[in-house]
Amino acid sequence: MQTYFSADHALHAPSFELHGGAMVEPFERSSRIDSVLERLASRGFEAPRAPGELDMAPVRVVHDAGYLHFLETAWEEWNRAGLSGDVIANANCARRMPAVREPRRIDARAAYYALAADTAITRTTWRAASSSAASAVAAARHVAAGGGSAFALCRPPGHHAAIDMFGGYCFLNNAAIAAATLQLAGANRLAIIDVDFHHGNGTQDIFYACGDTLTLSIHGHPDFAYPYFSGLAAETGVGSGEGANANYPLSAGTTWSTWSRAFESCLQRVRAFGPDALIVALGVDTFEDDPISSFALRSSDYLRIGEQLGGVAVPTVFCMEGGYAVDSVGLNVVNVLEGFLSERAAR
Amino acid sequence: MQTYFSADHALHAPSFELHGGAMVEPFERSSRIDSVLERLASRGFEAPRAPGELDMAPVRVVHDAGYLHFLETAWEEWNRAGLSGDVIANANCARRMPAVREPRRIDARAAYYALAADTAITRTTWRAASSSAASAVAAARHVAAGGGSAFALCRPPGHHAAIDMFGGYCFLNNAAIAAATLQLAGANRLAIIDVDFHHGNGTQDIFYACGDTLTLSIHGHPDFAYPYFSGLAAETGVGSGEGANANYPLSAGTTWSTWSRAFESCLQRVRAFGPDALIVALGVDTFEDDPISSFALRSSDYLRIGEQLGGVAVPTVFCMEGGYAVDSVGLNVVNVLEGFLSERAAR
Repeated sequence: MQTYFSADHALHAPSFELHGGAMVEPFERSSRIDSVLERLASRGFEAPRAPGELDMAPVRVVHDAGYLHFLETAWEEWNRAGLSGDVIANANCARRMPAVREPRRIDARAAYYALAADTAITRTTWRAASSSAASAVAAARHVAAGGGSAFALCRPPGHHAAIDMFGGYCFLNNAAIAAATLQLAGANRLAIIDVDFHHGNGTQDIFYACGDTLTLSIHGHPDFAYPYFSGLAAETGVGSGEGANANYPLSAGTTWSTWSRAFESCLQRVRAFGPDALIVALGVDTFEDDPISSFALRSSDYLRIGEQLGGVAVPTVFCMEGGYAVDSVGLNVVNVLEGFLSERAAR
Repeated sequence: MQTYFSADHALHAPSFELHGGAMVEPFERSSRIDSVLERLASRGFEAPRAPGELDMAPVRVVHDAGYLHFLETAWEEWNRAGLSGDVIANANCARRMPAVREPRRIDARAAYYALAADTAITRTTWRAASSSAASAVAAARHVAAGGGSAFALCRPPGHHAAIDMFGGYCFLNNAAIAAATLQLAGANRLAIIDVDFHHGNGTQDIFYACGDTLTLSIHGHPDFAYPYFSGLAAETGVGSGEGANANYPLSAGTTWSTWSRAFESCLQRVRAFGPDALIVALGVDTFEDDPISSFALRSSDYLRIGEQLGGVAVPTVFCMEGGYAVDSVGLNVVNVLEGFLSERAAR
């Protein structure tokens, strides 16, 4: 399986993250990717290819133009305004606030475009986020060209990024951009399965009114799991998208026996939907040792996830999402890919 | 004029504030109050009285029961959950998020009840916030008992605190609690003038559907001034409260000539409304040297503000709000009170 990857991911390296009321070393860090690269190499995968410059066409399909302008220019403007740190929102467009529109000053705009205060935009975050999205575009094009399957080793991740909001370590929604790339290449129906521990709120937001793209997410229940205010089973889509979104919120401590039942339900929905291609938002923070999550999947379970994905006979793009147990991220991610390839080879 | 004040305000002393993407010494600090106390003493004001224990009856009129429970217990629960710092929300109930309800885990509940990440709840914040509200209740009772006017030297401030949200250094809405106290004592119609640099979003939220309480706020336009998503002139109230809310969003750099025109309009509205009592949300961060605001009032202007308030012939409760130029806060606040008293004495 071909991997697409850009070393520019390392340009996103904020010095801290607001977590538990303190400033801590960011959980979403470069070494996560090194772990995956090492495992890919040791298991004999083809060398990753660099994706080249980002084609903005699919990005503009997914994200709001004002939001993209903000992401690209926020740090410079913040810096010019004399603000000393990186761009971190310290206010919200809170419940019942009546003036819901983009304000003018940079700190006000950051508050408008942020869904959380856990994520910083640094001087070079835009370059890292574009390179991550470029990997998703390249992987989707590989699949559109008949390559069968591909792996976009994205960092920063994407699934929390909404039409016009960043947060949860995400800026551009790589999985959604992969979907838009496939659509621009002629695909009509797409399915996205998000197996990250956290609800794919951004992906849901982007396709919520779209019946051509099935969005499925298995995640910690929002009563306790970030981002807290989306991911209930009652969220099934709106308008022509009604019925094309399904959430599987699960309890803390969930192990394979429960998780796999939700996953089997997802796969049945995908088969019934009959997509031209499948996109997997591949987070492995469902792992039992993940430092910020609370499911209890084991490394061997990821092989089974891959096998079952391989059993869905459609072209597949994998986009890397979360997973913060650095030493095991590579093993778990590559287990998914190996399970997938072994099932495909067996068919 | 009698001042009510509790030394317990000093129990709220978070170690930092998220500002400009960095952790800085909080702008809202204890020494602000020392500045006012010193000026009151040097100008011969009566010694402040301690307010005693907080009567929760008016607090429960203003705030949501679940929110009050959260404020009182959040730090203990946060600490029991092993979170290392004070309670600071790092996620939002963001735009379009569909699951708008109180989640269960403490960090999720903090995200639900916060309107900003600039405000920490420490181990003893509840005691400080209740003592601040107790000063507002005591001042309102002093006025209800025929005392004419009183000054609640509140800290933490209150006007950003909404029905069920904290933020902007505020936890309990002292001015709204003073209003509820007056209502419980028999007042029918009340007016609140908020002269703080920042929009009194919490006070607006609390009385937005209430036609018996006129809420007026002069502040920096939300295009550039915190809290950014409320305070437009178009926000005039809903239902039976329609027409009983008025906002005066002004430009950065506003001086007395412009500010005083908005203020005169407020006073005309108050006179036309005919309240039984007036509550002044007294922020002095409109001062030219305020470190986080951008109006340009001078110390002598506060005397004129007081004189004009004194010209409104109704019993008046002053509740301390913002003002962060520590060395001048006392002078400016006491100028308002002295202007008020001189005008009252002249009548």
